[in-house]
This record gives sequence, structure tokens and C-alpha cells, in this order.
Amino acid sequence: MSSKEIPYKIYLTESEMPESWYNVRSAMKTKPAPLLNPGTHEPMKAEELAPVFCEELIAQELDNDTEYFPIPEEVRNFYKMYRPSPLVRAYCLEEALDTPAHIYYKFEGNNTSGSHKLNSAIAQAYYAKKQGLKGVTTETGAGQWGTALSMACGYLGLDCKVYMVKVSYEQKPFRREVMRTYGANVTPSPSETTAIGRKILADHPGTTGSLGCAISEAVEVATSTEGYRYVLGSVLNQVLLHQSIIGLETEAALKKYDIVPDMIIGCAGGGSNLGGLIAPFMRDKIQGKLDARIIAVEPASCPSFTRGVYAYDFCDTGMVCPLAKMYPLGSDFIPSANHAGGLRYHGMSSTLSQLYDDGLMEAVAVEQTAVFEAAERFARVEGILPAPESSHAIKVAIDEALKCKETGEAKNIVFGLTGTGYFDLVAYQKFHDGEMNDYIPTDDELKAYAAKLPKVD
Amino acid sequence: MSSKEIPYKIYLTESEMPESWYNVRSAMKTKPAPLLNPGTHEPMKAEELAPVFCEELIAQELDNDTEYFPIPEEVRNFYKMYRPSPLVRAYCLEEALDTPAHIYYKFEGNNTSGSHKLNSAIAQAYYAKKQGLKGVTTETGAGQWGTALSMACGYLGLDCKVYMVKVSYEQKPFRREVMRTYGANVTPSPSETTAIGRKILADHPGTTGSLGCAISEAVEVATSTEGYRYVLGSVLNQVLLHQSIIGLETEAALKKYDIVPDMIIGCAGGGSNLGGLIAPFMRDKIQGKLDARIIAVEPASCPSFTRGVYAYDFCDTGMVCPLAKMYPLGSDFIPSANHAGGLRYHGMSSTLSQLYDDGLMEAVAVEQTAVFEAAERFARVEGILPAPESSHAIKVAIDEALKCKETGEAKNIVFGLTGTGYFDLVAYQKFHDGEMNDYIPTDDELKAYAAKLPKVD
Repeated sequence: MSSKEIPYKIYLTESEMPESWYNVRSAMKTKPAPLLNPGTHEPMKAEELAPVFCEELIAQELDNDTEYFPIPEEVRNFYKMYRPSPLVRAYCLEEALDTPAHIYYKFEGNNTSGSHKLNSAIAQAYYAKKQGLKGVTTETGAGQWGTALSMACGYLGLDCKVYMVKVSYEQKPFRREVMRTYGANVTPSPSETTAIGRKILADHPGTTGSLGCAISEAVEVATSTEGYRYVLGSVLNQVLLHQSIIGLETEAALKKYDIVPDMIIGCAGGGSNLGGLIAPFMRDKIQGKLDARIIAVEPASCPSFTRGVYAYDFCDTGMVCPLAKMYPLGSDFIPSANHAGGLRYHGMSSTLSQLYDDGLMEAVAVEQTAVFEAAERFARVEGILPAPESSHAIKVAIDEALKCKETGEAKNIVFGLTGTGYFDLVAYQKFHDGEMNDYIPTDDELKAYAAKLPKVD
Repeated sequence: MSSKEIPYKIYLTESEMPESWYNVRSAMKTKPAPLLNPGTHEPMKAEELAPVFCEELIAQELDNDTEYFPIPEEVRNFYKMYRPSPLVRAYCLEEALDTPAHIYYKFEGNNTSGSHKLNSAIAQAYYAKKQGLKGVTTETGAGQWGTALSMACGYLGLDCKVYMVKVSYEQKPFRREVMRTYGANVTPSPSETTAIGRKILADHPGTTGSLGCAISEAVEVATSTEGYRYVLGSVLNQVLLHQSIIGLETEAALKKYDIVPDMIIGCAGGGSNLGGLIAPFMRDKIQGKLDARIIAVEPASCPSFTRGVYAYDFCDTGMVCPLAKMYPLGSDFIPSANHAGGLRYHGMSSTLSQLYDDGLMEAVAVEQTAVFEAAERFARVEGILPAPESSHAIKVAIDEALKCKETGEAKNIVFGLTGTGYFDLVAYQKFHDGEMNDYIPTDDELKAYAAKLPKVD
């Protein structure tokens, strides 16, 4: 516990902002398993990845040893538009819960993309521009990543082609409109603009699309258009590297007030936020300098860590991307349509999967209705209307704070509040109207998906 | 110009936050004209206002002399959830405009209500609670004020009844859903819950409502329900007083870096944001200590200052509220439906009206399409997606910065960025699709409205 008076919001000054990203793989005794070529099952080489990804990003992706990567000055200047983000002491929540615990959250929602996704979007767009590319392509589902990438490309004057899952394109016109404001070209997927899109439309007339299909279209355009590459907003090592800015700022803010965390909690879909938040703390834990629990929170409807197996799987539904070792549910696993927001990915970052397999991290699965109850409780006392994804972490932070109330322990609970829920109000409406339910896949369902995982020796 | 290095965002520490609101009326040589009883045309007395408004708010409303009102501790703690708000140096915009001007904006959008409205909502809810009331009623059009009041009441455990113009209730379900998240009771207006609502529905079957009608319903419920009062989010002196927190923080942040503003720009609908932003600067200007231009920006479609006359008018369309002296267009003036967002009020704060009449303030009217062009230009380089209201100030700040480019002057331009446009994307879509136009009322139209102003000796 700190002897200094802790403000509601701990802001670092701009001069205290980290100047490098931290690569948590450098501290890992067992490195994450490499991406494999889906044909040969050999580790992917840089030259195999080059038609799809930008050069410097490939170097970051494959580098398990370098500890720090300097953040380019142009990226740091962009960060200053919305960073450092505040580490908030949740005094009002503590009071409402009547808990002796001290609750802190790192809030990443104070930017127009509404989430932490911007941290990696600007980095990836920067390297694309530096390589002399004309533009990048990507897919987006709920739209957070597409929005973030649009903002980054708009800033750098880079063309941005977003394939947006058709059902989201139609149901979330506001997200689409934000992307247009930043100059992005947004196409509902599947579309007539690609060979794979035309094939899918012919095979499945009237389909409303899927993330897997949108990825395939974005990759096809990137690899077939001069001066374009494909970028991705989660799962990859490079993304976790860029997101380490979250953890490094959190670490610096805690140190400023002599606060030692007892637990660090984050939601996990593909792992970008959690991997970034925990990076420096995981290093200290591996090195025996920190004795804190690190907790991944996932939806019970998409339970990668808690019910998946540690195995190789395709990263995309279309099975054209490399194989990654993770805790997959099977690349054709699609969570219940009732499930709101993100965290729907069928797998998990290879880095986090290895850390989890090593016992350095815990995982908890939580049900949707309880998540929205926690979200509303939080909103009413802390002001911020949280994104459904972020609310998974809120739910577990509240649960842990209530345990402290029972034991009388003043533990320091730190969680990641990844974003705001301003574009998720259809889900809130369902919750208020009692139309939300908690779908949990059965063991038999998960076994059937697991049986279809690719065989890798 | 400052010799210190100015960061992208100037944050005050929590201990540097103002502890009192500043009452700009105390510095005015000619005080704003009093509210008049609509029947007798005599100045309204506190006891006449007591059935409608909370006691302490009435005292604030009628006090033209007290300089500072201490901010209650509970309100200050609430402020710490989202304040101090940053004063941002718009380095990226300056670079994009290639101007020698230094542009600063006070950003009030980093809270879930999405605007500065929360500053007064929490104050008004606090005094209602202190008076032992059960709840408050209000009306909301676009929804910013209703959201802010819902948040404040949710925090204090006060009941909140919001009458939301029916067309907005149906077209902006997300705003409504945010209010429900904070526990507010939201009723589409006109409704069957009030006598005036039933009368309007009988007289005009199928009407989609108006702000004037929603005010009448909210006032009826407040005055006829035990333990309730009515609250209002703009125009009133008390609201400008609470919003002075914006100006006081801006003043403190500028002083921290030895910056003297050459002009201060704000959008003006009812005047709550502008009145708050300029309060301490206007004092200095009146006292001859500051030689800065103060510029109100209004939409050309609702040109109160630039084309209204200085006269008494009703504050509401229903003509039941007191008369206020302002620059009205006539209480039944309704701006073109094509006009996006707020700033639609037919009148203007009495305080600002007097300052304008005294020649202490300038006013500019800008057209809608040009405002959205400025909004998009700003969003692409500064990241933040601005509210249409705020974008009026952006438009004039850009115009002034471009004038500096011509003259080579490094002027300090300060403007108020009141909020974000996340719930205004229908308007952005119209802009992108070329469906927006610039309606400007004709002289004959304005004359016809002005002819209907009440006769006051």
C-alpha cells in the first residue's frame, strides 16, 4: 500500500511516456511455438510472409529475443494525441462495493476508435508507409479494429481498404460512417470485388458473411494489388508488442505511487489487450520479482483457455493463413449469435497460450448476463459506459474485490478497461429488455470441433 | 508566446482544479436583464420560481453580485471522474493548415455523456438531493443533456424522469439506451402521462413532438409531483455559473505555460458552453486586463445573435415559462429539420445577450456543410470525431488560423471542443452522401417571427 495520496486518475506526463515497446517473448523460458506453413508444417520464414505482411512487422513477429523495440518518433507523436491514458483509481466503485481492496483500471477508451486497437493500428500503418506502400487491407467485424486502422491511415495519408462482415456493415452503419469520415474504403463482405467473395456469393446466395470470409477477401486484395499489404489487429506477436505500451504505462503509473499489484486482470479474445497489459508484469513474475496473479477473462460462450486444448490450428476460417499453436476451439467454431461484442475469436495468441500452458497465468470464463450486470454497476458509479469486451474484466475485478471484503484484505487489483460501449447499445438494449441469454457450448460440441483440428507432428 | 515546451495535452493535477465556480455577472457593469413574470411582466421572485426549481439553484440564478460560489465537495469528487479535462495543443492541425497560429482547444468530450453538459447536471442533481427531493424532471432533444442528467442522478441515487422528443426517441434509440443504463425513466413526448401531453395528442394525432412540448410535460410533472423539481441544461444563469469550470481550468492551464489568448471561440446554442468557457476571460476583458477577441459561433440556420433583436421572449414554445431578455428569433421559431445536432434554441442566454449588446463579444454565423467539412478535416488530423455543435467552433478556429497564415501572425487561438459526435453519425452520413444542405431563413421569415415577440415596456 502506498503512503502517498493517490488521485482519481494517475496521468503520466508526456515525457514519462515509454519510448520503446517491450517484447515479453524475450523473457519467456519456453518461447511461443512458431507459425507453421499450412502445407509443409515447417516454421514460416520471413520471405514466405513478405507477400502478405510489411517487412518490419515480419521482423517483429519472428523476433523472440530482442527486449525493446524503439517506438518511431512519428508513432510517439500520434500516441500523444490520446496517450498517456489514465490509470484510474476506482474510488467510487470501491465505496459502492464496500471493499477494502484498492481497484485500479487502465482506461484505453478515450479516443475515437473507442479502444486500445489504435495502439497497434498506428504502428502497423507507419511501417506500411515507411516501406513505401500505397495502402493496407484488413477485415473488421464489430468495427473497432477497422475504425482504429482508418484513423491511423487517415493521419498518414495511406489508403485503407476495410472488408466489413456484411451483417455488421448493415447493422452498424455508424461504425461504417466513422471509418468513412477517416477516409477509409469500406466494403461489405462477401463482395463482388474479389474472386473468393464472388465464389462465396455464388455458393451461398444471400449470405451475411463471416470474419473468416472477410479475412480471405482482405488477404486476396493485399496479395494481388501492387503496393498493398494485409494487417491484423490481434493474435499476432507484433500486435502484442505494440500493445505493451498499455502495460509499460501502467507499470510506470503504479511505480509513481509505490503501488505493487496483487492481481492483474484483462479480457481475452485474441489476446492483444491482455498481452499488452501484462507484458512488464509477466517479465517480473518470470524473473521472480513479482508475486501477482495474472488472470485472463473470456466469455463462457467462447472458452478458448478454459475449455480448449493446446494445439495447432488455422488462424482463419478459410484455412489459407499459417497454422498457430494456441488454445483453439477449431477454426470453424462460431460463437452463439446471441453473444455481444468481440472476444469471439476461436483461438488465442500463441504467446499467451504458452504462458498459460506454463502455469504463469490463470483463466476464468464468465457468462454474458453477469458481464452486463457488472457493466451497468460500473457505469453508474464510475461514469464510463464500458464496452462488452472490457466488461468481462470488470466482472472478475468486482468478484475479486468482493472476496477481499470477506477476507478483509486490502489487495491491489489492476484491470484493463479496453474501451467504451457507445457502438454496442443494441446489446445493452437486449440486456435491459431481458432478451439476453447465456449460451454455453456443450462438451460434445467442443469435442466435435476439436476432432477437426489439423494434425501436426 | 511561451518559452516553455508545451505538451500535446495540458492536464491540471486534481489539486489544481478550481474549488469554486465563477459568476461572470459579478464583473458586468450592466447586469443581465431579469426574468419576468409572463403575466405581470414584473421580475420573477424566488418564491415564484420555488415550485419549479430547487432552492439553491434559484439563489444562484438571481445572484448577480457574488463572485465565487464554492463547489460542494461531493460535486468536486464527481468532477474528478472526468476532470480536469485536457487543454489540447492542436499541433497536428496547425501543421496540416501550415499556419503560424497556435491553436488550443479545451476538450469536454471525455465522459459518457459526450459533452460539457455533465458539469451542470451533477451540480443541479446535487442541490436537488440536498433539498431532500426524490427526483428531477427534464426534457431532452438530441439527448446530450438527458444523458448527462441520467448519469448524475444515477450516481446520487435520485430519480430522473426524462421527456424525450418522440422523433429523437425513435431515431436515437442508443441515446435512450444510455439513459436507461444509468437508471433514468425515459418517456417519448408528447405522452399520455401528462395533461398537456394528452391535449397535444388529441389536437395533433400522430405528432412526433417538439422540445417546447417536452419542456411543458417535464414542468407539469415537476410541479404536480411531491418531491420533484424541474432542471434545465442551458440558457439559465445558474448553468453558465456551473460551466465556468471550463473557463477556469482553461485559464489555469494557459497560465501554467504563460500563454495569453488572442481570441476565444465557442459555439453558442443556448450559451452554456460559451458562457462557461469565457467567464474568467470576460472578467479580465471588462477590467481591461485582457485584450482578446471573444467570438460566438452559431449556425446560419438559427442565427440568434447575428440576425435576432435584443428583446424579451418566452423561453419555451408553450409560453408558460418566464420571459427572458435575449436575442430571440421568436419562441415558435423552429430551425430547418435538415439542421443537424443541437444549437437549435430560438433564443440565447441573457448573460451572453447583454455582453454581446455591450460590444464585448462578436458573433459569426456559419453554414452547415462548411461546418462538417471542418469537422472531418479536424477528425483526420486530431483524431477526435467532433460533435456537430462543437464543429461550429472548429470551423471558425480554422478560418482564423488561415488568416494568420496570410498575415504571418502567431496568434494564440483558443476554442471550446464541447463534445464528441458518436451519436450524430446520421448527420455525418448525410454529409458523406451529399444529402446535406444549407438552409438559411429569409429576412421575411425572421421578421414574421419577430413581429410575434411579446410586448414588454
